[in-house]
Amino acid sequence: MRDVAIIGIGQTKVGEHWDLGLRHLALEALQAAMKDAGVERVDGLYVGNMLSGELTGQEHLGALIADFAGLRGVEAVKIEAACGSGAAALRMGYVAVAGGLADVVLVVGVEKMTDYLGPKVTAALAMAADADYEASQGVSFVALNALLMRRYMHEFGYRKEDFAPFAVNAHANGMNNPYAMFHINVTPESYARAAMIADPVNLLDSSPVCDGAAAVVLAPVELARQLPHPVVRIAASAIGTDTVAIHDRRDPLTLEGAALSVHRAYQQAGVRPEDIDLFELHDAFSIMAALSLEAAGFAEKGKGVQMALDGEITLHGRVPIATMGGLKARGHPVGATGVYQIVEVVQQLRGEAGANQVPNARIGMAQNIGGSGATVITHILERVE
Amino acid sequence: MRDVAIIGIGQTKVGEHWDLGLRHLALEALQAAMKDAGVERVDGLYVGNMLSGELTGQEHLGALIADFAGLRGVEAVKIEAACGSGAAALRMGYVAVAGGLADVVLVVGVEKMTDYLGPKVTAALAMAADADYEASQGVSFVALNALLMRRYMHEFGYRKEDFAPFAVNAHANGMNNPYAMFHINVTPESYARAAMIADPVNLLDSSPVCDGAAAVVLAPVELARQLPHPVVRIAASAIGTDTVAIHDRRDPLTLEGAALSVHRAYQQAGVRPEDIDLFELHDAFSIMAALSLEAAGFAEKGKGVQMALDGEITLHGRVPIATMGGLKARGHPVGATGVYQIVEVVQQLRGEAGANQVPNARIGMAQNIGGSGATVITHILERVE
Repeated sequence: MRDVAIIGIGQTKVGEHWDLGLRHLALEALQAAMKDAGVERVDGLYVGNMLSGELTGQEHLGALIADFAGLRGVEAVKIEAACGSGAAALRMGYVAVAGGLADVVLVVGVEKMTDYLGPKVTAALAMAADADYEASQGVSFVALNALLMRRYMHEFGYRKEDFAPFAVNAHANGMNNPYAMFHINVTPESYARAAMIADPVNLLDSSPVCDGAAAVVLAPVELARQLPHPVVRIAASAIGTDTVAIHDRRDPLTLEGAALSVHRAYQQAGVRPEDIDLFELHDAFSIMAALSLEAAGFAEKGKGVQMALDGEITLHGRVPIATMGGLKARGHPVGATGVYQIVEVVQQLRGEAGANQVPNARIGMAQNIGGSGATVITHILERVE
Repeated sequence: MRDVAIIGIGQTKVGEHWDLGLRHLALEALQAAMKDAGVERVDGLYVGNMLSGELTGQEHLGALIADFAGLRGVEAVKIEAACGSGAAALRMGYVAVAGGLADVVLVVGVEKMTDYLGPKVTAALAMAADADYEASQGVSFVALNALLMRRYMHEFGYRKEDFAPFAVNAHANGMNNPYAMFHINVTPESYARAAMIADPVNLLDSSPVCDGAAAVVLAPVELARQLPHPVVRIAASAIGTDTVAIHDRRDPLTLEGAALSVHRAYQQAGVRPEDIDLFELHDAFSIMAALSLEAAGFAEKGKGVQMALDGEITLHGRVPIATMGGLKARGHPVGATGVYQIVEVVQQLRGEAGANQVPNARIGMAQNIGGSGATVITHILERVE
């Protein structure tokens, strides 16, 4: 197996792109990544996307985007793992390069959700849950997270306002990210006043419906060494799964798929939680951030929210999360999110994160989650000296 | 890179499975494949599927099927490449094993289309075409094939009835396949009387809307040698792409993506067209069979239909195609088809094809096509002595 590096990154601003289709968004991101990498050809294109069929009537994104990008003929497929599609696509690209079946590959995550604001998007997102046993009962995705959050508050004695630091931190970091959807100042007071969506999940607990695309170029580390950027290698790439339906789990408040995925990643990279300098986690909802911190070994069970209350998740805290705004402030174009997270970790490890730079960041972890913890993809990136 | 073998195969009967959901169909096929292989655990699950979101409101099939199959925790993703999704999933599984990132993996193709017979399926299938430039104009998938067939007849001077041998051969072979959807006798006369769908494409030119699942287990060849079955290795695995919209091609009657995919496969396997003992091609429509034979080098341009008229495509002909019924008679549950083709080639190479056995079959080729030739995945399998 070969060591694989990320040699190029690109992203579009996340937002409501009424003037751009799926292929245009993907193009903007992948052209930026290829330019950043200094490559004009690739051996494969792996597209992460969840909802193109349901929301824009277009499947077959691999060939479609390859052609539009001037890469006609190249191997190209779409990978889907619900909201984890982006990192799942990266995983497939990583496998191809690590195994020696390809040298330079492009991974693009893209999602266009705002053409159908309203009930159609809610129904589409519910396809990440179990259609027969959850969605068909009328439980939307935000409602599932509300059930988890309510249970967590009950089990561990937290109040609603204790979750505020997740939103405050994400939006503070998003302020300095030009690609973020939101540039707003969130305080504990504004969090307390935020509109309720599915009690206890309010608007600031939630990531937005939006459009966006992000891309990375992968290549063997020896090739990366010939390029001007600091070399960032993929020290670990791991997928763990769990039941899709939450009621089938041993404990709804333990993300076993995440624990498995992170454990595999730590093993591969030969690191422990304390070695991680920043953690781009899947804060689609505040409760998911708390559960992810616990599954990754940064907090004991029931202590994820306490960790946030103690200020440990900020840029200068013990485990900086959502360093460029996270899913809440940068935005969560679902199939693209996993690739945005990787782009941001690379920015941090290259020292290109500007005002949000985590000092001396050398090892960063990104975790993308499909459904309520059913597919969890963890990548650990390391700056090679 | 390691040599990869197919150590287990499984399939459900293709048909209208009103009593089985997606996960049940997948389970039946994968359990059969795992039993055939004699394995109880796998390192990864790659699911080929195109339409689960649109037709059953369920994405996230990787984790869903993994859990239902008792494989909770395992790496699992869904791969989509329109009607080529099944073979694209096989390609991802192959890459993982060949590159040494996994030892034993499961590939499942599954599709459930009959819950929504009628316009919804037609619209869903059109997602394989270009949503912005083809489908939005009202061109259905069968209409695109009708345009190609009409043009082919015009260019090369064929009559409608000249296409009959494709249907006659497929249905003759399907008669002996217990997993085929149709067991009907088709003659040139019944072909001439078949209901027209989109002139000149008639009912017997077309593959049916149906449900089904097929599965294979992959492992390194050295592991395969310890098992009781004849060893069938994957001698080539290649994807080629072309424009999704047909009007963007240099010549609509030349499948450049297929030519590219086949060329790559011949190179990898070190074989030429005359070495291929049987060819499971993508006969979703008769015109696609003719164009595929030409792109693969079995017939000159414009001679694919002549080849069929000359009897060269039958079980005892020069290039046996659709040996177990093909997409027309076995059926075309779109995301599953590419895996069914592989299962059938393995049956032939193991000598388990019963009344349809191609004598002394040693090298078989399978080609799965997404869209009207936009994503083409070719696999060459070889019986290892």
